[in-house]
Amino acid sequence: MILSGSIQAHNDSLLKDHVRRFDFLRENIPAAEDIVSKLIAFQVAIPSWALGTGGTRFGRFSGPGEPGTLEEKILDVALLHQLNRSSGAISLHIPWDIPDHPDSIRSLADKYGIRFDAVNSNTFQDQPGQAQSYKFGSLQHVDKAVRKQAIEHNIEVIRHGVALGSNTLTVWLADGSCFPGQLNFRRAFLNTLESLQEIYAALPADWKMLVEYKAYEPNFYSTTVGDWGQSHLLASKLGNKAYTLVDLGHHHPNTNIEQIVSLLLMEGKLGGFHFNDSKYGDDDLTVGSIKPYQLFLIFNELVEGMDARKMDHALELAWMIDASHNVKDPLEDLLQSVEAILLAYAQALLVDRQSLYHAQQENDVVKAQEILQDAFRTDCRPLLAEARLRSGGALHPLGIFRDMQLRRTLTEQRGIHTVATGL
Amino acid sequence: MILSGSIQAHNDSLLKDHVRRFDFLRENIPAAEDIVSKLIAFQVAIPSWALGTGGTRFGRFSGPGEPGTLEEKILDVALLHQLNRSSGAISLHIPWDIPDHPDSIRSLADKYGIRFDAVNSNTFQDQPGQAQSYKFGSLQHVDKAVRKQAIEHNIEVIRHGVALGSNTLTVWLADGSCFPGQLNFRRAFLNTLESLQEIYAALPADWKMLVEYKAYEPNFYSTTVGDWGQSHLLASKLGNKAYTLVDLGHHHPNTNIEQIVSLLLMEGKLGGFHFNDSKYGDDDLTVGSIKPYQLFLIFNELVEGMDARKMDHALELAWMIDASHNVKDPLEDLLQSVEAILLAYAQALLVDRQSLYHAQQENDVVKAQEILQDAFRTDCRPLLAEARLRSGGALHPLGIFRDMQLRRTLTEQRGIHTVATGL
Amino acid sequence: MILSGSIQAHNDSLLKDHVRRFDFLRENIPAAEDIVSKLIAFQVAIPSWALGTGGTRFGRFSGPGEPGTLEEKILDVALLHQLNRSSGAISLHIPWDIPDHPDSIRSLADKYGIRFDAVNSNTFQDQPGQAQSYKFGSLQHVDKAVRKQAIEHNIEVIRHGVALGSNTLTVWLADGSCFPGQLNFRRAFLNTLESLQEIYAALPADWKMLVEYKAYEPNFYSTTVGDWGQSHLLASKLGNKAYTLVDLGHHHPNTNIEQIVSLLLMEGKLGGFHFNDSKYGDDDLTVGSIKPYQLFLIFNELVEGMDARKMDHALELAWMIDASHNVKDPLEDLLQSVEAILLAYAQALLVDRQSLYHAQQENDVVKAQEILQDAFRTDCRPLLAEARLRSGGALHPLGIFRDMQLRRTLTEQRGIHTVATGL
Amino acid sequence: MILSGSIQAHNDSLLKDHVRRFDFLRENIPAAEDIVSKLIAFQVAIPSWALGTGGTRFGRFSGPGEPGTLEEKILDVALLHQLNRSSGAISLHIPWDIPDHPDSIRSLADKYGIRFDAVNSNTFQDQPGQAQSYKFGSLQHVDKAVRKQAIEHNIEVIRHGVALGSNTLTVWLADGSCFPGQLNFRRAFLNTLESLQEIYAALPADWKMLVEYKAYEPNFYSTTVGDWGQSHLLASKLGNKAYTLVDLGHHHPNTNIEQIVSLLLMEGKLGGFHFNDSKYGDDDLTVGSIKPYQLFLIFNELVEGMDARKMDHALELAWMIDASHNVKDPLEDLLQSVEAILLAYAQALLVDRQSLYHAQQENDVVKAQEILQDAFRTDCRPLLAEARLRSGGALHPLGIFRDMQLRRTLTEQRGIHTVATGL
Repeated sequence: MILSGSIQAHNDSLLKDHVRRFDFLRENIPAAEDIVSKLIAFQVAIPSWALGTGGTRFGRFSGPGEPGTLEEKILDVALLHQLNRSSGAISLHIPWDIPDHPDSIRSLADKYGIRFDAVNSNTFQDQPGQAQSYKFGSLQHVDKAVRKQAIEHNIEVIRHGVALGSNTLTVWLADGSCFPGQLNFRRAFLNTLESLQEIYAALPADWKMLVEYKAYEPNFYSTTVGDWGQSHLLASKLGNKAYTLVDLGHHHPNTNIEQIVSLLLMEGKLGGFHFNDSKYGDDDLTVGSIKPYQLFLIFNELVEGMDARKMDHALELAWMIDASHNVKDPLEDLLQSVEAILLAYAQALLVDRQSLYHAQQENDVVKAQEILQDAFRTDCRPLLAEARLRSGGALHPLGIFRDMQLRRTLTEQRGIHTVATGL
Repeated sequence: MILSGSIQAHNDSLLKDHVRRFDFLRENIPAAEDIVSKLIAFQVAIPSWALGTGGTRFGRFSGPGEPGTLEEKILDVALLHQLNRSSGAISLHIPWDIPDHPDSIRSLADKYGIRFDAVNSNTFQDQPGQAQSYKFGSLQHVDKAVRKQAIEHNIEVIRHGVALGSNTLTVWLADGSCFPGQLNFRRAFLNTLESLQEIYAALPADWKMLVEYKAYEPNFYSTTVGDWGQSHLLASKLGNKAYTLVDLGHHHPNTNIEQIVSLLLMEGKLGGFHFNDSKYGDDDLTVGSIKPYQLFLIFNELVEGMDARKMDHALELAWMIDASHNVKDPLEDLLQSVEAILLAYAQALLVDRQSLYHAQQENDVVKAQEILQDAFRTDCRPLLAEARLRSGGALHPLGIFRDMQLRRTLTEQRGIHTVATGL
Repeated sequence: MILSGSIQAHNDSLLKDHVRRFDFLRENIPAAEDIVSKLIAFQVAIPSWALGTGGTRFGRFSGPGEPGTLEEKILDVALLHQLNRSSGAISLHIPWDIPDHPDSIRSLADKYGIRFDAVNSNTFQDQPGQAQSYKFGSLQHVDKAVRKQAIEHNIEVIRHGVALGSNTLTVWLADGSCFPGQLNFRRAFLNTLESLQEIYAALPADWKMLVEYKAYEPNFYSTTVGDWGQSHLLASKLGNKAYTLVDLGHHHPNTNIEQIVSLLLMEGKLGGFHFNDSKYGDDDLTVGSIKPYQLFLIFNELVEGMDARKMDHALELAWMIDASHNVKDPLEDLLQSVEAILLAYAQALLVDRQSLYHAQQENDVVKAQEILQDAFRTDCRPLLAEARLRSGGALHPLGIFRDMQLRRTLTEQRGIHTVATGL
Repeated sequence: MILSGSIQAHNDSLLKDHVRRFDFLRENIPAAEDIVSKLIAFQVAIPSWALGTGGTRFGRFSGPGEPGTLEEKILDVALLHQLNRSSGAISLHIPWDIPDHPDSIRSLADKYGIRFDAVNSNTFQDQPGQAQSYKFGSLQHVDKAVRKQAIEHNIEVIRHGVALGSNTLTVWLADGSCFPGQLNFRRAFLNTLESLQEIYAALPADWKMLVEYKAYEPNFYSTTVGDWGQSHLLASKLGNKAYTLVDLGHHHPNTNIEQIVSLLLMEGKLGGFHFNDSKYGDDDLTVGSIKPYQLFLIFNELVEGMDARKMDHALELAWMIDASHNVKDPLEDLLQSVEAILLAYAQALLVDRQSLYHAQQENDVVKAQEILQDAFRTDCRPLLAEARLRSGGALHPLGIFRDMQLRRTLTEQRGIHTVATGL
């Protein structure tokens, strides 16, 4: 679907009010233009598996019009990107999204300005006909044959990624144990390291490997890459192309994630992000729906740390949503998530860094808090709208999605009972 | 399978060593005979859905020889009960276990000394062809039609239970919300109350209703029956036949569950237990595999509180396992779970209550701890073995299960790819 | 100190910018006037013990110019109230704040428009010369003599409160146990109930008793009033004058506090609030400094629930800050806390309740979130400033506090090494 | 006090029963003699600050007869060591325990077979007359002068340690922040690293530095050495003499500590332990009083990992208790703690490592659990008693401590109102 005409009409109807709001804000914020430019450049990758309804171990309540093919998934992302101009990338998951014809997939994506972000391997499920089972782990497995199969799968994922123009492999391992005694932690770590080294050796020169960590689930006693320390240890031993990937939902209760972000940036080992939100565990809720201030604090560290290393905000880290949409329309949920990410980014850009530095040097805790909260409490939504307006997107993406009844159109095209691959 | 002959042979081979151990223990424990009698009387219900391999939202790795029919599930429990003589009850889950011919199912169970414990309704999944969806809740739902369907389902579950000789309905609700704003908490609670009242009205005179609570999952922002306080409030408003059911995995981190148990007993509102263990959330691991001391402390309160109310330990509360077996053979897992429950019970019976009372009256914290830990550190396994021996079970249930290769027999009978209904 | 002149000058200098901001907001918010009126009426009580620097078990780093007497504490609150016009109440703690001459204290408070909010008893510390020790509890104690002493202390606190014009007693109990076995939970609960009944009997006719709960600390195994369920059970057994008090820091990790608030309001048993913020436990940080969205969600339930019962927002619940200021100037911290509370209240008032109701009735989760976040993301600070302006306070209380160097003035008056009573 | 005569009499009275129990156990455990030898060699250091009653921020309830001087503290440890022969080391805390005459202190300790374990610096409190305040940190501080003072204090601690024959410095830092924005995480880390490097440079050749981490408290937003990953990063950058120290209470809820232990051992970076137990946070309860199975699992990893590196269990790691005794007699509490540590160690030694290895290689999760639980469920107390008997200690240390009324004797010597330095 090409939406430019509709977007134009939609924007026209909202323009006057938007201008009033943006003008008010511009008067308060000297750096408004700079922030708008950075917002325009910032792109968040959409994971292919988040385009369908998610579920829990207790059940799944599918919605209508889910994408049934890789092409339809790309079209979904294209739809999002037309609306918000900030979703210009897709992250595929193998084997759920093996492209039969990489070239045609690539041109379809190109047509909509979508690039292929990190490719993801899957060794946490058994596929039909698979020789070895991952019931007791993959890269950590006590049996060399299982590890070999998992290594080869990862290398195959790299091949698919190369064909699509991706340059990053994300490795998330469910490996771990459910009971004390099940695993020798040291041998599991060393097996994992050795396996990752073999995969690392197969990385093309310009590729990165992102090693994701997670505190628990689906293993309920130990996870072999369980925290940032373990991921960082692996990435350090692997080499310069290996980095840590942070997923906001993969921590123990109360963890200070923004501090981890800062330290990984300091060490040059932060590779990217999986955004989502949660109240209890890896709940995979809409970004910013539960703890928006934490999200802002994380972006505050990201901006500070990337600037300290003179990194390009938009290009050097992998930004991706990784959420599950159990009770919302996936596309609407993703629009809300991207909005929340950009809002936190805008607020972080708004922080008066010079004043913050001085407050810190003087241990003026009250003022430091005022500076952060002044940025957070500012209503930055007009900045986001302006960025979308300038780049051809919609002033109110969710509004137009609903007004145009886009889900109904998709459902008419695809049917009510399509089920997207994914969790 | 009738195992009595094999059990006899197995016991003969272990008898001498057992006698030595039991005699040693009997010399140390004056109340040994009394404890053995209580252990013999204590029965733990096996949930029908725990006889197959469990899974997580990330996948499920099935095992061989799972029971495919209700008859086979009863035979599995019969097998367990022959081995440990402590699993003489089964808890069914509707609609997974609807009996086509209740009478023949009942005689099959009778043959093995198995009774029908609490029956469980399911309004957390949609069944094929169901008129209304539970995507947004069941008994709490904003739409009366959905509530009505869920109420009727519960009443139907009672009918099935009556036909089988059960006298308890367990209501676990996944109802809640995933996002702030989704739900009006008060209206959700009041709808739930009203729905439960209609179900309560349909309870036969000698029935109980157990209202289970859970802190979170599968809803990740709020759960409408989320803690013991909410369950207790509902049970109080419902009436004398309504009780709270405690599942060990349904709490926030660090919760003192034993205190909740004590207070519910004080109020006469404790209805029963779902046993399992966990490190993170509702991990549904083998009972006693992670926090055996907590399990002992819970039994310590149970024994103390039931004795204070002169309750019959074996008859007045519903004791059930509710675990998921992702990486273990379900029957082996259940043997381990029952053993852990009985061990904790035996340790709790061993506590010197008179001395404990005096230590508490004198605020002698050191001594109170010594008394509890003396019981916990005592190796009570010979008491359990003796109880099994006297009641016709096996001295070492897991040993004989493996020696006789019972899973292999079941797999030969049922096939490798049977999948039991359940999570 | 009478600050009206300085405040006038301060406001004049900021007025033009304020008017611009307020006018912009008023254009967006039809209910702006109504919200401003409600903000003016809303008063937050300042606890006398929060006027000095707090500490931890590892140490305390005092600040200069702390109030050394009850008079000075009242003057501190008067200073806050002149600045923000929202701190027109003080909550005293006995025995830290026993007034020698209640009448003169009362006229001092009257002079500044300060009323006496809830009075607080202290049975978690031993005072010099005290006959019985609270080492092993107070109202729960196994020894009747200890309970009696604690009961009498509470009754004495009521007497002090009557003399000052208070009408509420807040009972926070540290009672509990540090080790399994130390306490019989049931007897501890029943002793506590009996003790509270004796105190309740001494309440004047127009008084309330607020029963506070806390999950843990300073007892590290069990707390006798440990959660809302236990507090509610006690309050229900006590009678119509007994209510539950919610302190935001007194829960297990991840607890959904807003749901508790909603249910207590539903039952007519919510008595009041202790505001603070926390990341780990009862950290007692500045309100809104860690989880401002949670604070908003709580106020969202408060507004909804109070409106449903047609309660007066400003008068029927006890609103109090209960924080500890380890690294900030206490008065600055309190200004930040009051601001955060009013901001959350304003945002909650902004929620479009009619639309939210309809979204909930339609299970439109996306829209429900949009409605809440639209309110939260709106920059409501001009509403607060306007409320202060209209009631004679400062447009920027923290700004004027710093510009006038009020702490320096206080330090010159009181000295550097005064230490306020408190934790 | 020299207790050998009394111990002899005490042992005589219990000997017959002990022999019966030990003989029974020896028959079941082929390796009994080897375990007893290892138990005899294993020594746990007693921290000088744990000899007095601890407190919380809410208060402290002192007990009688606390040691008022360093000499008395050494005599307390000597008393413990005579009773259990496993407490042959003391860990001092500077400035609480500055020895005026190191030589005489050293001979006093020698006399009782007590050596000086790690010395501990204190930069989390301000001492009277101190030039710079640690209110905003020490080794992390933005002000070089504060860092310098803290560095010099640590070097002074090393000097005291050298004079006493210690060879280890433990650095625990309270450094961190209470509010977002207060600290630049990266600069705080780098300042800390630089400061530690200066201290490291002052370490004698045969010394170790142990870098302790802690998730939170007394800072409630961030801690600069907050988890094992940060400690390990610092220790790696510092050099071969720097190690990580694990305190059981310094983690987020649910953390798998045993896995951390295993990985640190794998990396050759585990330096030592602070033993205690907890249910909520850094509760500092008696070792083994809340989660004895977790303690066993940790020792299981320690034994496995030390054996894999052919380390001497008794000599190469620093074993220390770090608990607070709020409601128990400190000496009784320490006797219980040492007993719990040795019990877990004995159980871990009992694990059939060969079978466990094979079970792991076969992914036989059920058997792996059986092997661990078989060790844990075995009543190993007679092994501990035998070890004490052979090394001249008491069969029942707590029993003789009470029978001889040793606290009464100490109180008569020292008075009721002595207060030991410490928290």
